[in-house]
Amino acid sequence: MKGERFSRMHCSVARAAAVVADQWTVVILRDLFLGLNRYEDLRADLGIATNILADRLDHLVAEGVVERVAYQERPVRYEYELTDAGRELYGVVLTLLTWGDRHRAVAGPPLVLVHEACGDVAQARVTCSECGGELKAGEVRHAAGPGGRRAPGTALVDTVLHGVGQAGEAELHGEGQIGQP
Amino acid sequence: MKGERFSRMHCSVARAAAVVADQWTVVILRDLFLGLNRYEDLRADLGIATNILADRLDHLVAEGVVERVAYQERPVRYEYELTDAGRELYGVVLTLLTWGDRHRAVAGPPLVLVHEACGDVAQARVTCSECGGELKAGEVRHAAGPGGRRAPGTALVDTVLHGVGQAGEAELHGEGQIGQP
Repeated sequence: MKGERFSRMHCSVARAAAVVADQWTVVILRDLFLGLNRYEDLRADLGIATNILADRLDHLVAEGVVERVAYQERPVRYEYELTDAGRELYGVVLTLLTWGDRHRAVAGPPLVLVHEACGDVAQARVTCSECGGELKAGEVRHAAGPGGRRAPGTALVDTVLHGVGQAGEAELHGEGQIGQP
Repeated sequence: MKGERFSRMHCSVARAAAVVADQWTVVILRDLFLGLNRYEDLRADLGIATNILADRLDHLVAEGVVERVAYQERPVRYEYELTDAGRELYGVVLTLLTWGDRHRAVAGPPLVLVHEACGDVAQARVTCSECGGELKAGEVRHAAGPGGRRAPGTALVDTVLHGVGQAGEAELHGEGQIGQP
């Protein structure tokens, strides 16, 4: 896993991808969200080689999204628990689930989500914090934020960014632009 | 990329992860959503080796999420355009962006989203299709759906699934359960 290259990019997508690094990491996170959090259970569920599982768990711990917690003393055995930052990756897993259900689930969804607040079987939607409408490709303008830089991984991104509207500029305090040194 | 192993799992998360295969694939998708869709622009933006870029684009085309469209005849040059299924991966990219902005953007967000419907700078939220509330880890029960099977990659998942409530069962027609042959 060459995560360092991506964590150095001036891009939150790349930096998050450096954490959710590969397919094994994704299904390990899925299992942690489902409540399978012991090494042996993860190994048995996934059919994953022990060296790969250990490597990916070490990676998730190093990234601060998973904590190793002893649940037995002799011999010491550990559970892997999502940290607060790790639990916030739930949306990434849910959007993958939603896409997979729509495009790769010929026999129907392998599992369904029941939202406890309303009790209904839920589909996950990605929506706007301000108006609640769905955020769809082509209906969102991408504008420069303060943390952007022209560098490998984002060398041309600034050429295709749009300006922020008046409301946006006020909220952003107008500092820094992608492309500025 | 060993995507086949994941696309064979009885899990929509794993199958979607087989498409959004690795970190390079994620940043290529990001660029396509931003409007950088020519081979040479992708190469220049990402600083990616040509063989890796070609391999990942071939993968995305084979998965049906990207189309190769000629924009010049002599010599023939191609643009890579997201298909409808590809555009539905926007939520995956947005949830990575949101997480990265919250946890890895020390200098502030590199770019911001302006939702055209409301004109505001938007944060992406993952919400319930039924009640509109946010879907947070720990507030969603995971229940067996019709497409689940006990197999490598999902060998133990059924042991931690909950039942669906009455409303859910009616919607699911009650056919098939994870763990049934």
